[in-house]
Amino acid sequence: MTEQLSKRRVLSGMRPTGRLHLGNYMGALYNWVRLQEQYDCYFFIADIHALTTDYANPGNVGAKSREVALDFLGAGLDPERCTIFKQSDVPQHSELNTLFGMFTPLGWLERVPTYKDQQEQLREKDLATFGFLGYPLLQSADILLYKPDFVPVGQDQVSHVELTREVARRFNQLYGSAVTPEIAAAESDKELMKAEISENVLERQILPEPKVLLTPSPKLPGLDGRKMSKSYGNTLGLTEPAEDVRKKLKGMVTDPARVRRTDPGNPDVCPVGDLHKVFSTPETMAKVYEGCRSASIGCIECKGWAADSILREIEPIRERRAHFEAQPQLVTEILAAGAQKARSFAESTMVEVRSAIGL
Amino acid sequence: MTEQLSKRRVLSGMRPTGRLHLGNYMGALYNWVRLQEQYDCYFFIADIHALTTDYANPGNVGAKSREVALDFLGAGLDPERCTIFKQSDVPQHSELNTLFGMFTPLGWLERVPTYKDQQEQLREKDLATFGFLGYPLLQSADILLYKPDFVPVGQDQVSHVELTREVARRFNQLYGSAVTPEIAAAESDKELMKAEISENVLERQILPEPKVLLTPSPKLPGLDGRKMSKSYGNTLGLTEPAEDVRKKLKGMVTDPARVRRTDPGNPDVCPVGDLHKVFSTPETMAKVYEGCRSASIGCIECKGWAADSILREIEPIRERRAHFEAQPQLVTEILAAGAQKARSFAESTMVEVRSAIGL
Repeated sequence: MTEQLSKRRVLSGMRPTGRLHLGNYMGALYNWVRLQEQYDCYFFIADIHALTTDYANPGNVGAKSREVALDFLGAGLDPERCTIFKQSDVPQHSELNTLFGMFTPLGWLERVPTYKDQQEQLREKDLATFGFLGYPLLQSADILLYKPDFVPVGQDQVSHVELTREVARRFNQLYGSAVTPEIAAAESDKELMKAEISENVLERQILPEPKVLLTPSPKLPGLDGRKMSKSYGNTLGLTEPAEDVRKKLKGMVTDPARVRRTDPGNPDVCPVGDLHKVFSTPETMAKVYEGCRSASIGCIECKGWAADSILREIEPIRERRAHFEAQPQLVTEILAAGAQKARSFAESTMVEVRSAIGL
Repeated sequence: MTEQLSKRRVLSGMRPTGRLHLGNYMGALYNWVRLQEQYDCYFFIADIHALTTDYANPGNVGAKSREVALDFLGAGLDPERCTIFKQSDVPQHSELNTLFGMFTPLGWLERVPTYKDQQEQLREKDLATFGFLGYPLLQSADILLYKPDFVPVGQDQVSHVELTREVARRFNQLYGSAVTPEIAAAESDKELMKAEISENVLERQILPEPKVLLTPSPKLPGLDGRKMSKSYGNTLGLTEPAEDVRKKLKGMVTDPARVRRTDPGNPDVCPVGDLHKVFSTPETMAKVYEGCRSASIGCIECKGWAADSILREIEPIRERRAHFEAQPQLVTEILAAGAQKARSFAESTMVEVRSAIGL
């Protein structure tokens, strides 16, 4: 009953790739900041996951994790309203991962669509490891430890939440019964069935199956018009100073059909137009459509407006980040308190898990 | 220096299969009791490993673990002189296992000889799981957490210690340097090399490679003459009451060539002869050879002597076990204290491991 009355729970995580860019922000963090208003949220920095693809060169995962924590706080995640922590500070993630491995068919992991995709995309990396094959399973552990109602993900991660639901289902089927004294005392299949039905344990979900919360993940172009991505080197940083944003935007590609200032353009095929759609107000959008199509404005003017819109979004983030950056001890305390709270929740789940398995 | 002066360390573990039989005892526990005199020993009950082959029917792993703990204590493992604990009480095993997965090639695990062997031998079980493939890796974590000098194993487990050494080597190669401030500050490969050599870190072994301590594992026949094994139902329990031992031995198979009482026999092809070789004194052995070959004794008499020899070994074990069985709280405390000590050691290794990886 209390559960129904209390806030529903949400969990999500992000790999520490270093300082975030606008694409990272709009794809996840922007949504998280809104989710914390409504849900009991757990957000973590997936530093162990960072090793699946970069074990040979972990660089300074610790320092990168800290940058990401600063970006979380800068973007407006509020430690008073959500729990922010680092995955490696909560060993229960690894513990549940190891236990899940025992009953997870290899085939389930080999069939996860991102397994083959990533191996093809990251050919220069050694991904033929046990940990890379098992990474969606570690993700399942990350999630199920916190028994969330929802997992906010973009379309590309839906298959991982599907696997998580399968893992939860299998766990509940294998260990969801056989815990009450009546069931333990049952001496025949018939008695067992009766004991299970009478206690409603056929329905018992030790690890509830979480639902996907499909979050908007707008197409954000990089400076060269391709998807904004660190590996393309075409990003705008989340906390880039105003003058850098303006300078970078000036060099951004536009509608290739608009060669001369006097040619009319089409914002719908222009990367700068795409930025306006994400960041500008309807008023600015109207000016852009009208001015570009009639060639009454030039690209430089239009890019200036795009910079204004982006800066309106990110300047407060940069200020907030600077505030936390100046107080490293405070950030350490926030992460420690978050880890403490996460460990406590995770351990209560592990107590149930170990007891259900009978360890 | 202190390390050289202090006792060398030994680690070994055993799956909780329930009460042990004589074969389990002679293959491992008998040696462990002797090792604790000389080494700083860690002995653990591998309850998480029990799930690799029996995830679908863990039975009461907890209760079985307790039986094995009682057998450990009965056999003479002394909690004042060695550390006895349950694997699942030390979550660092799972944590290190998860981290090892990140850099362990799938091929290493697929090539472990026991992987295919066991899949063929245990056809009725589902072994196509992620955890079964990864079980030698969990074993590597079990071992390396305690930085042992030696791992006492029988011949069949040598390949697992080999894998453990490979995992340690890879870990040290990947993360054994790049930790000192000088190395962190190095700005070129040349500087890095210089910093590494000057600090001798090219040699740095965060996780030392343990050596195999090949322990005698005498061929112990079961009542039907095949290898003593729970799955053949041909065992003598480690703490079987005297009358049961005598009764079971009476029905044991002998040299098939000795059909009549008057036929001479050959103890070297007789399963009862094999028992004598393990448990009897040279004096009794001499009587057996002489009496059997000359047909001056019958099999019943010879079996009686074998029972005497076995009981001389196991009666003190049964008494000691009963002593601990009568004090369940004491056993709980011994396991708790062992877990506490093991966790403390394991955590100190994990601090080094996390810092070396840079988490």
